[in-house]
Amino acid sequence: MASSPRVRMSPESRREQLLELGVSLLATRSLDEISIEMLAEEAGISRGLLYHYFGNKQDFHVAVVRRAADDLIAMTAPPAEGDSLTRLLVSMESYLDYVVANYEGYLSLVRGAAGGNAQLREIYEEARSALTERLFIEDDDMLLPDTAGTRLIVHAWSAYAEDLALGWAREPAGVTREEVVRAMSSSLPALVAAVG
Amino acid sequence: MASSPRVRMSPESRREQLLELGVSLLATRSLDEISIEMLAEEAGISRGLLYHYFGNKQDFHVAVVRRAADDLIAMTAPPAEGDSLTRLLVSMESYLDYVVANYEGYLSLVRGAAGGNAQLREIYEEARSALTERLFIEDDDMLLPDTAGTRLIVHAWSAYAEDLALGWAREPAGVTREEVVRAMSSSLPALVAAVG
Repeated sequence: MASSPRVRMSPESRREQLLELGVSLLATRSLDEISIEMLAEEAGISRGLLYHYFGNKQDFHVAVVRRAADDLIAMTAPPAEGDSLTRLLVSMESYLDYVVANYEGYLSLVRGAAGGNAQLREIYEEARSALTERLFIEDDDMLLPDTAGTRLIVHAWSAYAEDLALGWAREPAGVTREEVVRAMSSSLPALVAAVG
Repeated sequence: MASSPRVRMSPESRREQLLELGVSLLATRSLDEISIEMLAEEAGISRGLLYHYFGNKQDFHVAVVRRAADDLIAMTAPPAEGDSLTRLLVSMESYLDYVVANYEGYLSLVRGAAGGNAQLREIYEEARSALTERLFIEDDDMLLPDTAGTRLIVHAWSAYAEDLALGWAREPAGVTREEVVRAMSSSLPALVAAVG
């Protein structure tokens, strides 16, 4: 077979490549700014082929956001070692780094979910509960008791952490990364204590 | 003049009455659920007259939401007496009561603003900053230093308070009103302390 400048990829690899490309575009662009045309050009394939892999633009967007959410969940996995507060701190560091590195896309996910797009909302809720469910995992050094009241507080705390991460990513305002991470992680036990 | 069962009102009074009616409908309905037809029927006037006063449905919605936001700002005004933490506590009690009494409408404002409706976003931001600006007012017993870092935290704290109020209004989960108010107000100094 003669060599070709265009690499021939399996459908799975090609779809994977397109998803990764979409995720990387999403880092610095809102979902609305990512068009089929942009994608096709970046990937060096026809628009028709893109439709072949993803159906339509909306389905492509959903697949990209789902992949981005999976990345977020994987990246923020707490380390196996350390006490629960240390593990939370490391996890929040990764979360903050993710939001900074993927500001535009993450913001558009948050807004899309809040604005009532049902598919985005589902992915957003999935990612958010994956992040917070970790706090309730039973182990020898459990951070939080799993009660309805605690869950109410943890949900509100995650809104706080999200707003803080997005606000700091937009404008650090002289606050250091360490201070932000501490303001996220150290606040949780105090908040939970307030409801007894 | 013969008496009439239909009270004749000045245009100002009529517009006022329609706004109040809209606000009361908004307490238990989302903005999308409030139609011109519903309003006209409740007020006992023609749809045409409603358009005369408010232009169109969107303008009417904006006027109602603005009035509802003004009500929220007025209702949550902290008392003149007491130290800053006590005043914050009283203010947050009123905020929580407002969210409980106006759950559906408030939720639709939050979602509409987050989803990118520019007019709703403006009103929402106005109300939100009216609530938080109070925390920075200079007096003998100032709660918070007015720095960019503190403002970052206060913004995130207000996302926390909002999520907590909406979550508790939807499902109290065995948490008392006093616990929620304490979880809102007592957390702020601790959060601010985390960024030094």
